[in-house]
Amino acid sequence: MNERSFVHAARTVMPVDMAAAQAAAVLHNQLTKPAGSLGQLEKAGIQLAGIAGRCPPPVPEPVTVAVFAADHGVAAEGVTAWPQEVTAQMVANFCAGGAAINVLARHAGAEVIVVDVGVATPLGAETPGLLQRVVRPGTGNIAVEPAMTPEEARSALDVGAGIAAQAAGRGARMLVTGDMGIGNTTASAAVIAAITGLPAAEVTGRGAGADDAVLARKTEVVERARQRVPAQADPLLVLAELGGLEIAALAGFIVGGAASRLPVVADGVIACAAALIAAALVPAAGGYLIGGHRSSEPGATAALAHLGIEPLLDLQMRLGEGSGATLAVPLVQAAAKVLGEMATFDSAGVAGKQPPA
Amino acid sequence: MNERSFVHAARTVMPVDMAAAQAAAVLHNQLTKPAGSLGQLEKAGIQLAGIAGRCPPPVPEPVTVAVFAADHGVAAEGVTAWPQEVTAQMVANFCAGGAAINVLARHAGAEVIVVDVGVATPLGAETPGLLQRVVRPGTGNIAVEPAMTPEEARSALDVGAGIAAQAAGRGARMLVTGDMGIGNTTASAAVIAAITGLPAAEVTGRGAGADDAVLARKTEVVERARQRVPAQADPLLVLAELGGLEIAALAGFIVGGAASRLPVVADGVIACAAALIAAALVPAAGGYLIGGHRSSEPGATAALAHLGIEPLLDLQMRLGEGSGATLAVPLVQAAAKVLGEMATFDSAGVAGKQPPA
Repeated sequence: MNERSFVHAARTVMPVDMAAAQAAAVLHNQLTKPAGSLGQLEKAGIQLAGIAGRCPPPVPEPVTVAVFAADHGVAAEGVTAWPQEVTAQMVANFCAGGAAINVLARHAGAEVIVVDVGVATPLGAETPGLLQRVVRPGTGNIAVEPAMTPEEARSALDVGAGIAAQAAGRGARMLVTGDMGIGNTTASAAVIAAITGLPAAEVTGRGAGADDAVLARKTEVVERARQRVPAQADPLLVLAELGGLEIAALAGFIVGGAASRLPVVADGVIACAAALIAAALVPAAGGYLIGGHRSSEPGATAALAHLGIEPLLDLQMRLGEGSGATLAVPLVQAAAKVLGEMATFDSAGVAGKQPPA
Repeated sequence: MNERSFVHAARTVMPVDMAAAQAAAVLHNQLTKPAGSLGQLEKAGIQLAGIAGRCPPPVPEPVTVAVFAADHGVAAEGVTAWPQEVTAQMVANFCAGGAAINVLARHAGAEVIVVDVGVATPLGAETPGLLQRVVRPGTGNIAVEPAMTPEEARSALDVGAGIAAQAAGRGARMLVTGDMGIGNTTASAAVIAAITGLPAAEVTGRGAGADDAVLARKTEVVERARQRVPAQADPLLVLAELGGLEIAALAGFIVGGAASRLPVVADGVIACAAALIAAALVPAAGGYLIGGHRSSEPGATAALAHLGIEPLLDLQMRLGEGSGATLAVPLVQAAAKVLGEMATFDSAGVAGKQPPA
């Protein structure tokens, strides 16, 4: 009998290789630069070595961006100014190549795959290339009911883990999280509140442009929803009660990437909610996560702090789709090249720093 | 009679085109994303449109990184733990392709040119490709004497402006500032203190790894030097009294880039000192400066604030060479592509945000 994709991935994840990471830290101090002078780029290189299990680490390319799309019943609560049809319209835009993520992925030399895990509006022939993996056509309204059943959450985790395994099988050497779903910053805030224990007011933001009235409603909905979930609840139950189908798929995608020993670059607040679930379900998967950027959504900063991740970029972005993480791709690749290509003090005949007098 | 390179460049710089910048701001709000959701990337795109005088702006490539190298007499004061010979050794490393800037420039698809404006140690046959533009073999010791004469400062400004004009003539569409010089964070701090009016203690940092004793000496030297320069002094006199040959060349390079209507991506604290001089001498040149990164040197943050520049990256880097700015190159190029390649709400058939109820 076949094991489910997510269960298989979760069982496969190995902790990152601390010996390779340590070798990268040692190598950094032999390269022709003051020790530590490349800051976070050095940390990213050390992490890549740990993930790959060798030093210097291979340059992580090619890169696959997976954009998981789904709708959210909570949109009916007036938590967003955008009509729900925009989810499907943006999926069509992704498939046509005209969205920000398409432009940024082409620039980074990355492929984009678009996966429907639960878009409510029927998607027709205008979406060539779309992967249809619908678990259900949108979640329940978390203001008043569970987002999905635990079994549906497991199915969405399977979708994400399966997409990661397929991308790895086709040769991807780095994965990037992407998302689309009108209402999904509300679901993400609820998941982040539940996992971190922070109040809704500290993790709920304006998403795609909520005004004060919408933000107040959204915060109230997040607080009401999260109170249905007890502290220290099973992360799968948090996901099913408060999450989204794309959030669940992304959690599976992260664990699937870790199972294939690939770095997974996390985007903004939706990815951060998924990362919290992934790391709660499979703690070793957290070592494979690279923070692409710090979204301007407050929940992203709360989740990153909880995960102990310092992201590479902070450009006051809040678009989603994987846009911030994709912008970080060249930085991650540069981190590997520094370790692989720079001369050492010895090889270049450069004198080291003099000891203090 | 030929005009000097810097004087010619200074006379040629035109203010950026505010109409093209405004057109980019309007276009941003028609693209399929929430208004403002790409944060600083949108601002960079608007600036590129203003620089190019058209919207969407052309993608700024190819890119030339110019690394200006020089020595500093102040190194004799024990303001750095590195021997002065390292300047020449690193120049050889740049010419051999083994330094961080070589790795990062290759990654960004940029060329590196290395310019000796005043390295004290003789550079021999081991430096193929080095451009020899020596104004004098290292500056005077700013703790006790002027760094250079005003005429030497003008000559170094000419070198930088000339290099920018040549790069533009060979087809470069974006310039990146690079530098090498043992002791140059001391000179940069002195220039930044003089131009911003801040005390030495607020703008002097650990450079390439000063310990507490070295930092204290360095801060004292910076304070002593800057006190020879009256408040509101002519920027050319600040440069001659406190600066460095590579700082002067970089100021000329920035003005030269602006004269060719090219964006100039500024690296860390050395570039920031040069940018202060450039913008003081030719205010319109400031509009062509893009902040590549926020160096961990405190003087960089002080200078960026004085210039009103918000840099793209903040990776706690302090290497110099142009490394931080070169890492920002793909971000700047992405900013142009967003404006040039994204679909609009109309073209993609995506519904806009609903007006508040």
